[in-house]
Order: sequence, then C-alpha cells, then structure tokens
Amino acid sequence: MIQFADRMQNVVASEIREILKISNKPGVISFAGGLPARELFPIEEMKKVCTEMLSKEGANALQYDVTIGHLPLREKIAERMQNIYKIDCTAEDILITSGSQQGLEFTGKIFINSGDTVLCESPTYLGALNAFNVYGPNYIDVPTDHQGIIPEELEKILEKNSNVKFIYVIPDFQNPSGDSWSLERRKRFMEIVERYNIPVVEDNPYGDLRFEGEILPSLKSMDKKGLVIFLGTFSKIFCPGFRVGWVIANPEILEAFVKIKQGADLHTSSIGQREINTYLEMYSIDNHIAKIKDVYRNRRDAMMSAIDKYMPKGVSYNKPEGGMFLWLSLPENINSQVVFVEAVKRDVAFVPGTPFFAKNKKNNFLRMNFSAMPEDLIEEGVKRMAEVIKEQMK
Amino acid sequence: MIQFADRMQNVVASEIREILKISNKPGVISFAGGLPARELFPIEEMKKVCTEMLSKEGANALQYDVTIGHLPLREKIAERMQNIYKIDCTAEDILITSGSQQGLEFTGKIFINSGDTVLCESPTYLGALNAFNVYGPNYIDVPTDHQGIIPEELEKILEKNSNVKFIYVIPDFQNPSGDSWSLERRKRFMEIVERYNIPVVEDNPYGDLRFEGEILPSLKSMDKKGLVIFLGTFSKIFCPGFRVGWVIANPEILEAFVKIKQGADLHTSSIGQREINTYLEMYSIDNHIAKIKDVYRNRRDAMMSAIDKYMPKGVSYNKPEGGMFLWLSLPENINSQVVFVEAVKRDVAFVPGTPFFAKNKKNNFLRMNFSAMPEDLIEEGVKRMAEVIKEQMK
Repeated sequence: MIQFADRMQNVVASEIREILKISNKPGVISFAGGLPARELFPIEEMKKVCTEMLSKEGANALQYDVTIGHLPLREKIAERMQNIYKIDCTAEDILITSGSQQGLEFTGKIFINSGDTVLCESPTYLGALNAFNVYGPNYIDVPTDHQGIIPEELEKILEKNSNVKFIYVIPDFQNPSGDSWSLERRKRFMEIVERYNIPVVEDNPYGDLRFEGEILPSLKSMDKKGLVIFLGTFSKIFCPGFRVGWVIANPEILEAFVKIKQGADLHTSSIGQREINTYLEMYSIDNHIAKIKDVYRNRRDAMMSAIDKYMPKGVSYNKPEGGMFLWLSLPENINSQVVFVEAVKRDVAFVPGTPFFAKNKKNNFLRMNFSAMPEDLIEEGVKRMAEVIKEQMK
Repeated sequence: MIQFADRMQNVVASEIREILKISNKPGVISFAGGLPARELFPIEEMKKVCTEMLSKEGANALQYDVTIGHLPLREKIAERMQNIYKIDCTAEDILITSGSQQGLEFTGKIFINSGDTVLCESPTYLGALNAFNVYGPNYIDVPTDHQGIIPEELEKILEKNSNVKFIYVIPDFQNPSGDSWSLERRKRFMEIVERYNIPVVEDNPYGDLRFEGEILPSLKSMDKKGLVIFLGTFSKIFCPGFRVGWVIANPEILEAFVKIKQGADLHTSSIGQREINTYLEMYSIDNHIAKIKDVYRNRRDAMMSAIDKYMPKGVSYNKPEGGMFLWLSLPENINSQVVFVEAVKRDVAFVPGTPFFAKNKKNNFLRMNFSAMPEDLIEEGVKRMAEVIKEQMK
C-alpha cells in the first residue's frame, strides 16, 4: 500500500550488522565486528574533558553550529593530516562528518546516477557498498593483489568504460584484506587516474594503526589535480561512539559535500566535536594510539600464531602490518558462509567474505577482527574455527 | 571536469544559513535563526550529567551502538510521546536520528522518485524543502489559513493528482507561520488522508512549547492506518547541539528508516544519546521546559507589543500560542527581501518569507524569531524594522 521510492529496492539490511547481532550474544568469541578494544577507551580522561570543555565553551557546546564543523577541531585535524599523511591542507579544506560512513554516503549521493559505474578493490569494504547501493551504481571490481589494485587491470577497465564516476579504495590496512598498497603501486595508480581524470575516494580509518614499518604517503598527498577525496575518522584511533569523521577535498567537491551536509543533518554534534577537541588539547592522542597499537600488535601476533598452529593446510593469510583485520583464504571448495553457521554453533563468530566482493563473489574467504578479543580467547576461537574448517574439508 | 550526479542540480546552499552568517555578526539584533535561548542551556547540570553518565555507562558510551538507538532513551521518549501527544507507541516504534533534519532527509530518500508529487502547507519549513529537493520532487502547496491546511483544497488536489507520495505538515506552532491547527481541522485532515491512503510527515519540534491553552492531540494519535510519520527532537526543548531527534512510524516504514540510517551514519552518537538519557534521569525536563516557556512567552509578548507600537498600518500577524516564531504580513507591494537588505544596514536581521513557499512564492511576508533575544533588544529591533518598512511604504 505504501509506495517507497525505487531506490529502496537497492537497500538491504547490512549483512554485517545482522551478523554482529549474533556475535554480540554473551559467551561468543567474536572476530566479527570492526570494534576497537573497549578496555582502552579513555573513560576517566573523558570525565575531566567533559567538565573542562563545558567550563570553557559554555553554551556554544549546546547550541547549533556551523555546517562545516568546529574550527579548532578542523585545525588540529589539518595539522595531523599534514604530519602523518603529508596532505597539503588547512582547516578550510576539511568538513566534519558524522563518522566516515556519512562521508561514504555523501559520496554516493553527490556522484552516482543510477547505472553509473563505480570501481573498487576486490574485495572491498561492504559498508561502503551499503552506502553507495541506494544510488544504484554498476560496480566493476578491479583485480587486486597484496600490493593493491593492479595498474594494468585498472587501465584496461578505464579504456573500456567511459562513465566511471569514481574509484573507491582503502590503501592502508584494507578492510577486509588487511593489505596495504606499496609506494610503487600508489604512484602508478595516481598516474593513471590523473591521465583519465577519475575522482578517487581514499578511505583511511586505520592508517595510524601501523605496527611496523613506515607510514606511506597517502594518495591525497600525491594528488596534483584535486581528484582525491580523503575520508578520515576518530573511530579507530580514539572512540567510534562520537561519530566524528572528516572529508578532505578540493574546494569544488568540498562545497558539494557541505551543501549536502546542510540538508542531511545541519551539522555534526557541537558537544561531541568539542569533547574530542578538548581531549586533543588536554591529552596526547599519539600516546593513546601508541597504547592501542601495542595491544593490537600482540593480538594480531596471537591470531597469526593460533592460525599457524591449528589451521589445516590450504588455509592461508597475508600478514597485516597494522589495522584491525586478517583475511583468511580457505580452499576453494570451502564456503565461508557454511563455516560461519557451524562456527556460531561453537560460539565463535567472524564475517564470511562473500559480501565484501562487489561483483565477482568469492565464497572461500573470511574476515577476522583481532582488535577486540584478548589473546587467550583469540587462541581458543581460532582453534574452534580450525575444527569446523577441517570438518568441512573432509 | 568533475561530473556530479544530476540530483546536485537541485541542491542550493540553504538561504537561511547564508542569512544566519550575516545575522551572527556581533552587534546585530537577530530575529533570523530558530535558535533556542543560549542562556537557558543547563551547562552546570550537564557537567554533573557527563561525569555521572561515564561512571555508569563506561565504555558503552564510547563504543559503536545499535542503529535504532539507545534503548533507555527510546523508552523515555515513548513515555513522553504517550503522555503529551497521546501517541500509542513503545520504544520499538522509535528510531533515534541525528536531529529531526535527518528524519526529513530520510523521508525524501525513502519516498521521492524524481518528479513525484509532495504536498505541503503554504508557507512551509524551508529546511524540509532543502532536505527533499535533492530527490527532485514536484511540490504542490496546499492553501492554508490560520487553522491549518484547508480540507476542501486538500481534497481537490488529491482528486486531481494520483502520484502524491506524502504530505509534509507542522501542525503545532508552525515554522514559519507560528499557527497551530485546530482540533476540527486535524480530524478532517486525517479523515481525508486515510480515505486517499496518503502518508503524512508530522514534524513537531515545538509542540511542547505551548504558552497558553491545551496541547492538542497529534495527527499521529489519530492515525488508524499507520500513515503518519512523526518527527520529534530535543533541539528546541533541550539543546540542539546534541543533534538528537527521533522518528515514530509503523513497523514497515520504520524498518525502511533503520536500513537507510545504517548506510547513512551507522547510528547517532552513543555518548550524546547517553548524555541526554542521563539528564532525563537526573533532572526534570518538564521543569526545564516550564522555564523556557516563561522566558519565550515574555519575549513573544514583547515582540507583539513592539509591533503594535511601532509598525505602520497594513502590517499584521496572527498571535502564536507557542513555539519560537511570529510571521509578519506586509502590504502586498512591499518586498521582504528589500526590507531585509535595508534592515541589515541598521544591524537587525530576520528571514524574508519568500523561500518558505514551495511553489507559489509570496514576497510580502517575513519570519521573526522571538526566542533568542532579550526584551529590550526585541523592542529596539522591531522599532528599526518598522522604520525600514515605513520607508518602503512611502
């Protein structure tokens, strides 16, 4: 009886959020969510921050705010982005969003006409697909290896398709693969997209969480033509509950984002933005990130050790140098969704890999989060998963 | 060079937010924004609330949350909605949104195909038009008097138009008119929309701010067929800086909203929702609202007195029984946008009425906010406006 818009046919409930419901049951060892370790959240610090912030900001913290976001926070983000990712930007180039998920949604809204082509890695982040799907894109997943998108394959696709609206990529500790693009691949990629004038969405929630090696320059830092839209967030390096992220883009594109933000929710929480800004003034987020990285590195190592110890031959992974995820490759005849159903019966959860493929679905992968569980449960969970996989291989 | 989606042609920067930039200059007497009085925000209470909340909720306040929103907050909203607006609902019928602006945006996304017809009052809230515009609706503004939408006119329009997707209305202290629908009109309206099976968006940010008389039953309370989508918010009765609002709808429609919310921003701020929830537990929001109403009533009275005292013949208004706005009718040959330009030169600002008309624009109205300025500045501002209007009438 009630007639929704046609675009609602493209919208299905996020598979990952359905899986999270199952994995949130008490007693379940969950490698499913992309959850930061809750025991590391700075709760006592935030009590001091909230009181101090309200004393300093007063009514400004509770009143309507400008759409583009709180200036002192944008200034601090600009400085971090210059230092860490070598992005040439000021506060004027930055819009605060309600999490980087909102940045993804706005990207879809701003660029995609129904039937337009969007390129992405294979696999790619399913939350981004959920954000874009409502606008009816036609996906092409570009063949991707452990070094990133394969330049020759990208070029072949761009030669054949004239209506590519943008390319969505996660070059640092990709979700779900955990892989990072090599410097060489970053350069080749930018050379190609600049030749074809294709906008790029560089999603970077995990880049700061590098456990070893050097942070590589972002695509945005190599962006000579203003093609790259960089998405950042406090969710993984601080706390996701604030829903505070940011977009960095050239003035023409940023103006489109700001206009869309006005209609979408006026602005991101005034109080939330100021709570984060005051935290950044009172404490060192770099010390906080160092603490997170120590914990996550140990958990990643525990997960790799347990996999090496318990998993049967034919199961493999590429060591992630940071981030929160490990991407497990199963023998081709094993279906990760069947493994999931059996694993849940043993109170262990993860995310089957299939929904992370935009187009050419592969069923023999699965994503494991290592940030949210302590080492002993990681070992126990991997052990139970290994039992299920062995049974499936019989 | 960069190709946006076609829908971006429908998006212009919000006129009201451009005007707010002008009116935010120091020294300007501003009747422009829909700003709550900042001196009434409970800053000291919020310090206690934040500390208490973080002690009680711990990491939950900083972690990812469920899309539909924090259950204890939804329970409290359900109870208030039952008591005040006689809406038969539970927490299950409620989705927390990032302000009611997000509820408006989602409504557009869920219902409007480009070219679909949307009905609204004449005048109507321009922020809603901004939210809907991106989806390319065709508006029909239904003739409206001080009692609300005129039922006979609504029926004529529904007879002639078969593709009406929804009707957008603000029956309580309308923005911009300040008018409230009579009980008789509410009943007639619901009888008609139920006969034609037309979804209704009932936007109610101001209903609690009634200075005199009885709160009338909401349209949602009379909704026998599940056609009414009710939008509420803490912005006007508490603090807008949190960006916390809610949607109440039948299960089929609410499910569509929840799915759209997942892709749009995952969920509204965990910490913000819990700060409000804890405020509601520690303090009486009804006492807070009573305090707001006392102040706003006096300011409305001051504005009406000043208009009666200074404005020339031919300028009129209908007394608002609550809310934040007074809608000034000028002689037909006076253009409110010209008045605005001249008034700004004398450091007084308001919003010209023209952009509040979806289709049949009228230029001789303007919206005055009375909640954000003290009585003496209200008198001074109205006096200066009156001088400008008198000059224009010469």
